[in-house]
Amino acid sequence: MPVQLNAPLVADLQPVAGVRIGVAQAGIRKANRKDLTVFLLDEGCVVGAVFTQNRYAAAPVQVCREHLASGQAIRALVINTGNANAGTGDPGLGNARQTCTALARSLGLHHEQVLPFSTGVIMEPLPLDRLLAGLPQALADAAQPQADDGAQWLSAAQGIMTTDTLPKAVSQRFEIDGRSVTATGIAKGAGMIRPNMATMLGFLATDASVAPALMNDLARRLADASFNRVTVDGDTSTNDSFVVIATGRAGNATVTDLDSAAGRALVAALTPVARQLAHAIVRDGEGATKFITVQVEGGRSASECLLAAYAVAHSPLVKTAFFASDPNLGRILAAVGYAGIHDLDVGGIDLHLGDVHVVKAGGRHPDYKEEDGQRVMKQTEILVRIGLGRGTATETVWTCDFSHEYVTINADYRS
Amino acid sequence: MPVQLNAPLVADLQPVAGVRIGVAQAGIRKANRKDLTVFLLDEGCVVGAVFTQNRYAAAPVQVCREHLASGQAIRALVINTGNANAGTGDPGLGNARQTCTALARSLGLHHEQVLPFSTGVIMEPLPLDRLLAGLPQALADAAQPQADDGAQWLSAAQGIMTTDTLPKAVSQRFEIDGRSVTATGIAKGAGMIRPNMATMLGFLATDASVAPALMNDLARRLADASFNRVTVDGDTSTNDSFVVIATGRAGNATVTDLDSAAGRALVAALTPVARQLAHAIVRDGEGATKFITVQVEGGRSASECLLAAYAVAHSPLVKTAFFASDPNLGRILAAVGYAGIHDLDVGGIDLHLGDVHVVKAGGRHPDYKEEDGQRVMKQTEILVRIGLGRGTATETVWTCDFSHEYVTINADYRS
Repeated sequence: MPVQLNAPLVADLQPVAGVRIGVAQAGIRKANRKDLTVFLLDEGCVVGAVFTQNRYAAAPVQVCREHLASGQAIRALVINTGNANAGTGDPGLGNARQTCTALARSLGLHHEQVLPFSTGVIMEPLPLDRLLAGLPQALADAAQPQADDGAQWLSAAQGIMTTDTLPKAVSQRFEIDGRSVTATGIAKGAGMIRPNMATMLGFLATDASVAPALMNDLARRLADASFNRVTVDGDTSTNDSFVVIATGRAGNATVTDLDSAAGRALVAALTPVARQLAHAIVRDGEGATKFITVQVEGGRSASECLLAAYAVAHSPLVKTAFFASDPNLGRILAAVGYAGIHDLDVGGIDLHLGDVHVVKAGGRHPDYKEEDGQRVMKQTEILVRIGLGRGTATETVWTCDFSHEYVTINADYRS
Repeated sequence: MPVQLNAPLVADLQPVAGVRIGVAQAGIRKANRKDLTVFLLDEGCVVGAVFTQNRYAAAPVQVCREHLASGQAIRALVINTGNANAGTGDPGLGNARQTCTALARSLGLHHEQVLPFSTGVIMEPLPLDRLLAGLPQALADAAQPQADDGAQWLSAAQGIMTTDTLPKAVSQRFEIDGRSVTATGIAKGAGMIRPNMATMLGFLATDASVAPALMNDLARRLADASFNRVTVDGDTSTNDSFVVIATGRAGNATVTDLDSAAGRALVAALTPVARQLAHAIVRDGEGATKFITVQVEGGRSASECLLAAYAVAHSPLVKTAFFASDPNLGRILAAVGYAGIHDLDVGGIDLHLGDVHVVKAGGRHPDYKEEDGQRVMKQTEILVRIGLGRGTATETVWTCDFSHEYVTINADYRS
């Protein structure tokens, strides 16, 4: 039951010149569903990426890091759903490598020019035979003329879903250097979502021309403003990967500094794309019925704002209260209290729920009435604004509530 | 639906000489339930305590700290359920102080000789008038002859319950210095349970004679082996308090060193009492259907073992898999991976589920069969044993699973 995750997220999609996409039904885990996707990048594309900070990084994440470090030009991405190829040890690494080698051979590339991605169940062997058998179908699909309406991007967004109820894809048109530029991105993820430096899986391509040396920094900046600020259940995945591709086909003068006018324009244009995808993950969070923005202001540092914001966003008690539309707002104060800001003076704390001032100077606001809190709690989009009263830093985290459906989904995921 | 939380936990209760208990129905939140409890301690009793590390410490916790620091002999405890008196600012502090003053006046004590405790909903004003009006009934109950069968302790265990489905009370008899000694404890707590230096509410009394200077250290040692190692939902309460009382009536030579033979005997005898109470909190955890022991071995330090154990014990994905009896054990590896042990080599990780060896050297054990994992997952008491393979430290944390019932309870708690 996604929260106001409406059609516009997958409408008006734009293809990105220089990127071709093919999708196949390989039967990785279940029959008759799109589960294998390839991205083919024209010569001249540059790629940046960020990956999970989970020490149990999945085999494909390890191989991605190696291939990106090799300095080879990345020319293809291969993504399967249905199996995460994580916690699979050396055989898993071998399977990820063989996937790259097989696709590279078909395309006349070096295996280090291919990046592999997997998502799905952890600790089960990747069914390599079915994946390899599906590659020709995906390549044949990529060889079709790429539709003007971005249909291939929608297909890819479907092809990377796991427990997602809807595909997530966003396009944006903007100008750099007087040239019209396009950016289109897709993402997946509904559970095991607390991206740390990346998200479950996100791919964003633009036809802007960007210096290769900037790409990782670009990916990092976009992730920090989007995927790295959302959480569904606080579980950081083993497979988090966010890839940014610049194909250089828009004809702008190559961006060589993200802090130049053109660089800032690029970041400003791509950030909402990444953020809409990140928000889409929360709106489609497992069992989500509400979209919650937790904004912490007045901190001494960004990191302490994030401590408080994540404590609130991860508290099962806070999240079930949102599900119930119950203004049991003391639970928010308790979470701020245990967030780990060890010298916090709670006498300086302020709390707003939407437009309702709930807590002033650490205690219940004298004018606060439960019916006002109730009115806001019934909304499907709720802003929680917490003032720490000790500095000027601000951070925002987006999350969802915690419902019966979450338990149902995760108790039944593999059945 | 408590997990094997059987009658023996409240059977064979022993009164503790030097402690009288009275319980009343004060209508704090709901009518016709025991919700106000007083402990009256004879002259000569000594008391130690540990309290929540939540910065939003409730008003009664703040008052307890002041009164214990005053050096006055503690002679009475007053405990209400139905309202936590937390997040209530200065009026809340005033209410906690007035509670102590009123009880002290009735007993001819100084107000600093009384410790107040509250549990229940956060951020609502304490109904002081109803609490004060209930005190005479509680005192009259305490004035009755105290039953030989520990009935007053059972009544107190009932009088401090919130969402608990059953009262929690444990007695133990042991010998120190050739003298027969008794210890009896009660605890409450079913949600907002991740005690940090204490638990929601726990009270343990022994008739052993113990030097006053040792009491806080004794409380700390007992908490660290029991309440500080359990978690239900990872939410550290604003009201956590654990109090140890020694009445000195057993006639043993006063214990003056916890590391002497007598001191070690005392700690060894009281630890299982505290641990059984802590386990009872988990077994009666909100919505719990399973009791999970997470034992992490082979760490470089106790703290890194605890990081891994709590990451597993708090993961909603791990907890829902236990609820479903689904051996989706990759979720455990993912939690170990994101636990925050930044130089962890996952190639050294071992995982046993009960007697089944699931993961060896970081990857799936070649002999592991899903049906073996399934067999263990169906049990109601499950041991998860994780080897980090990098040292000799070991820590154990106890938790429960995460069920539909948890969401129901916390979505409906105030209604």
